Amino acid sequence: MKIYVVGIGPGKADYMTPQAKQAIASADVIVGYDFYVDLLKDLTLGKEIFKTAMKQEVERCKIALEQAKKGKTVAFVCSGDAGVYGMAGIMMEVAKDHPEVAIEVVSGITAACSGAAVLGAPLIHDFAVISLSDLLTPWSRIEKRVTLAAEADFVICFYNPKSKKRADYLEKACRMILQYRSPNTPCGYVKNIGRDGEKGIISTLEQIGKISEIDMFTTVFIGNSETKIVNGKMVTPRGYIGV
Amino acid sequence: MKIYVVGIGPGKADYMTPQAKQAIASADVIVGYDFYVDLLKDLTLGKEIFKTAMKQEVERCKIALEQAKKGKTVAFVCSGDAGVYGMAGIMMEVAKDHPEVAIEVVSGITAACSGAAVLGAPLIHDFAVISLSDLLTPWSRIEKRVTLAAEADFVICFYNPKSKKRADYLEKACRMILQYRSPNTPCGYVKNIGRDGEKGIISTLEQIGKISEIDMFTTVFIGNSETKIVNGKMVTPRGYIGV
Repeated sequence: MKIYVVGIGPGKADYMTPQAKQAIASADVIVGYDFYVDLLKDLTLGKEIFKTAMKQEVERCKIALEQAKKGKTVAFVCSGDAGVYGMAGIMMEVAKDHPEVAIEVVSGITAACSGAAVLGAPLIHDFAVISLSDLLTPWSRIEKRVTLAAEADFVICFYNPKSKKRADYLEKACRMILQYRSPNTPCGYVKNIGRDGEKGIISTLEQIGKISEIDMFTTVFIGNSETKIVNGKMVTPRGYIGV
Repeated sequence: MKIYVVGIGPGKADYMTPQAKQAIASADVIVGYDFYVDLLKDLTLGKEIFKTAMKQEVERCKIALEQAKKGKTVAFVCSGDAGVYGMAGIMMEVAKDHPEVAIEVVSGITAACSGAAVLGAPLIHDFAVISLSDLLTPWSRIEKRVTLAAEADFVICFYNPKSKKRADYLEKACRMILQYRSPNTPCGYVKNIGRDGEKGIISTLEQIGKISEIDMFTTVFIGNSETKIVNGKMVTPRGYIGV
């Protein structure tokens, strides 16, 4: 009668916490988006596995709930952290009429953190995390958040910066930020974090919206007014004296 | 000639990634704030150890740099993620004239993620992370960020919400947010995340600023306009249809 919603980190086993591994090891049943379940194949041998395609999030939660109600221990896996645009929330909503099913969230390294490490240290000071996907959120709300985050001088980390259907969203967001920050503001992006083909690139606020290789598997970082480049790394100072 | 700046997560070994353990294992020298170095004693046997007290951040970086310049591999450890209010940035700034010293950031689970998991799923949608400490940041800038984050309807995660000298900062911040959100907005806090005595409490925006046990070792979560309580957990919906 237990569901672990497990963040497995960006992908490679190197980034997965012992707590996440233990949750998967203790489970009878594994549920997840097929790409992520496949990443775990060494850990899931002999377990019952339910994989679903993308965008079937509610379906996936219902499967996890049904299995748990049968008395099984379920590991419901997602990439990154289960609590950052992850499945932890929707799982709890789907199971709201079943308080007898215990739901435990096991956190993982989210792309804001793993991506920041690749670029240097962009998130050292206050930051905002915004998804540019308007599949579930009206674009007007995203626009308001981007503008106010820019005005507040937050470092900004964008998840889902672009897709084929939303090819110009990052560029639109950058134009809003340019009302508050210099075109030379250091920015960066990381593709395939913690996976084969990982690639981190430093750019500027003026340029980054135009870069075509940025896609759904990319995380984008926009510096604040003090972010700088130090030996090729993106660094946001915190204000220590004597540096 | 290498410095790993390693985020060890909230504390217990259960939360530390294999990547972080490997970096510590590969090091000749361990540098860090004494409390965190002591947490690692099983991993650091036989290594040269430099511990410093709190607030000696620049000093700690200089020690790490001196050791690396001698040709040693250094693991510079910090709690949570090294890149979120961590030592990764200041280490790069201190080493700016020594590009020959490679600095690699190894990310860990930051308190926003580990704390969110204890409370439920508060960070499922766009969020802002703000430190309420004005030791290094003018209060006017903090105030501006809190107000704009409230207006933008971000879920807000506060680090360093209070100390003895800053006993009323969280209450002041909550009063600013109350201009934009209902007094009944679900909020929560987690003390001693991932350590002995871990404690997560759900509260409201009206109440949380007055809670005396919230201190420097506490992380605070303020819900957005849609955050709700589901079976005693704090859940921010993302907008999936069919829940």
